[in-house]
Amino acid sequence: MAQVLSDIEIAQQTALEPIVKIAEKVGLTDDDLELYGKYKAKISFDAIKRLSKNEDGKLVLVTAITPTPAGEGKTLTTIGLAQALNYMGHKAVVALREPSLGPVFGIKGGAAGGGYSQVLPMEDINLHFTGDMHAITAANNLLAAAIDNHVHQGNALRIDVRRVIWKRVMDMNDRALRNIVVGMGGKVCGFPREDHFMITVASEIMAALCLASDLMDLKKRMGDITVAYDLDGNLVTARQLGVEGAMAILMKDAIKPNLVQTIEHTPALVHGGPFANIAHGCNSVVATKLALKMGDIAVTEAGFGADLGAEKFMDIKCRFAGIKPNAVVVVATARALKMHGGVDKKNLQEENIEALKKGFANLAKHVENMRTYDVPVVVGINKFATDTDAEIATLRQLCADYGVDAALNNCWAEGGKGGVELGEKVLQLIAQPQTPYKPLYDVNDTIAQKMETIVKKIYGGAGVVFESKAQKQVAELEKFGLDKMPLCVAKTQYSLSDDPSLLGAPKDFTVTVKDVRVCTGAGFIVCQTGDIMTMPGLPKVPAANRMDIDENGVITGLF
Amino acid sequence: MAQVLSDIEIAQQTALEPIVKIAEKVGLTDDDLELYGKYKAKISFDAIKRLSKNEDGKLVLVTAITPTPAGEGKTLTTIGLAQALNYMGHKAVVALREPSLGPVFGIKGGAAGGGYSQVLPMEDINLHFTGDMHAITAANNLLAAAIDNHVHQGNALRIDVRRVIWKRVMDMNDRALRNIVVGMGGKVCGFPREDHFMITVASEIMAALCLASDLMDLKKRMGDITVAYDLDGNLVTARQLGVEGAMAILMKDAIKPNLVQTIEHTPALVHGGPFANIAHGCNSVVATKLALKMGDIAVTEAGFGADLGAEKFMDIKCRFAGIKPNAVVVVATARALKMHGGVDKKNLQEENIEALKKGFANLAKHVENMRTYDVPVVVGINKFATDTDAEIATLRQLCADYGVDAALNNCWAEGGKGGVELGEKVLQLIAQPQTPYKPLYDVNDTIAQKMETIVKKIYGGAGVVFESKAQKQVAELEKFGLDKMPLCVAKTQYSLSDDPSLLGAPKDFTVTVKDVRVCTGAGFIVCQTGDIMTMPGLPKVPAANRMDIDENGVITGLF
Repeated sequence: MAQVLSDIEIAQQTALEPIVKIAEKVGLTDDDLELYGKYKAKISFDAIKRLSKNEDGKLVLVTAITPTPAGEGKTLTTIGLAQALNYMGHKAVVALREPSLGPVFGIKGGAAGGGYSQVLPMEDINLHFTGDMHAITAANNLLAAAIDNHVHQGNALRIDVRRVIWKRVMDMNDRALRNIVVGMGGKVCGFPREDHFMITVASEIMAALCLASDLMDLKKRMGDITVAYDLDGNLVTARQLGVEGAMAILMKDAIKPNLVQTIEHTPALVHGGPFANIAHGCNSVVATKLALKMGDIAVTEAGFGADLGAEKFMDIKCRFAGIKPNAVVVVATARALKMHGGVDKKNLQEENIEALKKGFANLAKHVENMRTYDVPVVVGINKFATDTDAEIATLRQLCADYGVDAALNNCWAEGGKGGVELGEKVLQLIAQPQTPYKPLYDVNDTIAQKMETIVKKIYGGAGVVFESKAQKQVAELEKFGLDKMPLCVAKTQYSLSDDPSLLGAPKDFTVTVKDVRVCTGAGFIVCQTGDIMTMPGLPKVPAANRMDIDENGVITGLF
Repeated sequence: MAQVLSDIEIAQQTALEPIVKIAEKVGLTDDDLELYGKYKAKISFDAIKRLSKNEDGKLVLVTAITPTPAGEGKTLTTIGLAQALNYMGHKAVVALREPSLGPVFGIKGGAAGGGYSQVLPMEDINLHFTGDMHAITAANNLLAAAIDNHVHQGNALRIDVRRVIWKRVMDMNDRALRNIVVGMGGKVCGFPREDHFMITVASEIMAALCLASDLMDLKKRMGDITVAYDLDGNLVTARQLGVEGAMAILMKDAIKPNLVQTIEHTPALVHGGPFANIAHGCNSVVATKLALKMGDIAVTEAGFGADLGAEKFMDIKCRFAGIKPNAVVVVATARALKMHGGVDKKNLQEENIEALKKGFANLAKHVENMRTYDVPVVVGINKFATDTDAEIATLRQLCADYGVDAALNNCWAEGGKGGVELGEKVLQLIAQPQTPYKPLYDVNDTIAQKMETIVKKIYGGAGVVFESKAQKQVAELEKFGLDKMPLCVAKTQYSLSDDPSLLGAPKDFTVTVKDVRVCTGAGFIVCQTGDIMTMPGLPKVPAANRMDIDENGVITGLF
């Protein structure tokens, strides 16, 4: 029996093509690229402008059922599908999110796909890549330093140090920085106040980067960011501190999309990666729109389950970018559906048809949700070695009975070849004429109305309750005239409801909004349900502890 | 009258050569480079190994008198001299330190030379460059997170949270982070303790990078770093936390030297930039040794005045690297010497021969000091527009009377052409046969002996006093057998003594050592005199506030 290789071993066995060769395939010349080594490049805005004259390709969004610790393989499927489409003679391009360093050293590990469906060089993509995360960290923390410095130097804007909204960030899982006191040490060290670090991907600058059309738009958005309240209760913006120009200088390269390749040399744009929780969780608008110009088909992904990532993809990203997917793939696994049907994680190896049938309700709800947006849907069944034939057959039958296309894919083990069935279904769907963009709600509805629409139509709940603090915040946003923006719901990814223990497709629940705040730079309103952790911690034995590099530069333990 | 252009305007008017062309001049091929855009590249260790077979060129160290707010122009002279040597038909290469983002946005601004003696692209070098600073920040903070996580997860090593030595870093001037309390928020957020952020260049990882011979040596050094004491008073190292492999992965590219060009297309290695205070303040050993293989002459610099930067260059860097300069340039300006002679900063425009004569004592002491190391010395007079002919003539005469060569240079305004006189003097000096390496002290002397030697022979003081805390620390290092390393004195750069108000060449003073600690990763012992600020703050109007970038990507306000 063949030895099963790890992701990094498979990656290291792959002979990469020079990125200039990959670029040629999609109409880019040497002059369009800023190389970062031989296998990574940023694409210039001159090139983006030139390609903008091309006709748009078709857009395929990959989303998933409610995630479980069993793993769904969304990034894997996104890469595998694009490889499959190329294998079948089409010109497909991938547009993905950038991994964050924090999880790489924590529990989750890298986020560059897996098996024979990876983006490469996976070591670099999972580490510093082209420095986008570091640029965001620097711009975020320059703004933070400017706030405390402004207060220290006389506080002309009368910033209320009890109500500073802007937090510092670090691209590391570091729980000790979640809640801190800064400014200790007396007069030369500023005014003491409570503060918090978030992980870099949670920065509003990341969300703004991903929604911006270019550097000037990003500069404007960064200037618009609300950083604090003043002592009279007015909002203070980054522009009032005068640092949006310097922040834009720091972001001048980060705004340019990154080109890499998949294991089968499919062109891949990997750019931007906001939290799918307090932000919208999709790669950059610039990269997605460029992918549409580079290929006949652009395959992209949205974070967490379809209730979070895909809802925000449709209601935030598509609304701002003027795009709409031609097809949506909802990734499901027999294993995860068994968990939604009540099976404990440790018993997932055993066949359990009844649990699978019960758990199917979760998949059905996500399919129904995506159809609300008037987009054609196919279920992508991501094959695991332990799935039984009976389970796969049952899952196919359940999909057929429900009236949704389904395709098995084996892209981890086989790469693009393993995704041909899914590729065929996707090609059928995108051949259909596209209907107009149909968002879930009107941004001019009240915050309460918008929230109720999302809860009832997407989550399947009975209604929504705003806690008293949240009610006051809504009233304040209405007073400031800042309520006419899309909502970005921060909710547990482990349930369609706001209770992580409710698996499957729960009903009759009420969602509680605890906190409402505006992201004036990103352009959305965050409605927070439950507790959101914006700075992860390291586990007992962090992934960092198994990592090493030898004298030949060969990395081990990174996956 | 011609308009005086700013540094960034001069830089933006320069047509750069592709970095592959610059590389060709020094025997490097495309395959030896990892490009970062068209004008920056990292050099592979394979190439470094190949070039190591070349004969060594001559090494010129540029240092300076005791710095004043009037400015000396050390980096400018280093670049200008190398340009001059090339202009005169020699093959000279520059090896410089990397600027830090913090000062760029604070008061000091960029650090890439000035006028017609700059390294380019100055915008990139002054901003993210090739990401080395960010890599150090990440590696430093991964280790910090590992410490608090270890304590949180059961503290098997019994780390004493009252005695954690390792600090977090950020590449930003942010006084609010100097003294903080971390781990607030209850059980899921770790154990509360006092903590501190430093600016990234102050990280011991930066010092270790600059002294390491390659990635494996750097990994070993990072594993050796002392991070805390345990509850029994034993030292705890990074290796005991098991993260030196992951740290090395983060540093895999940062250890490779960066190649750029000067305004006159002279090859320039810009790599590493440790604090010249709590660290040794010189660019990397890897880059300096590579520069010796790339050119007939390598011109490099050391931070602050010769009592700090050059002393550490000679006693730390040369000792570890097995190198010795063939000549030393001590940079002086008439303006700064007038300040040493008692003139107030606001009156420096006026001619003052008497003050110049009085202030010359400072220059004479630095020349004397460098001769202690048995190296030939030339004074590089950096010309300012306001210097009078009489002042320059006086300074030349003072040097002649003292018995040291001197050369005027006008490299800011004229580039290499303005450095021909200095170039000629340097060529004379390096033509002399080299004497053996002669450090100031034996590392096997006691800490007290080594400190006394530095104070008496270099600073010109009468003696040294160790405060009681420092005495205990010395005894502890002796107990651990960690006292046989070179000293790295942290002292004010504004005086030869430890009192910043004593200008000129003070005598009969005593230096007080307040704190002694070991950097087991870098390989030296820091003796701290006075208060050392390892995290700068922003001024009332930070440089960041004047910066902007337009829709064509043109940056303004960065200098």
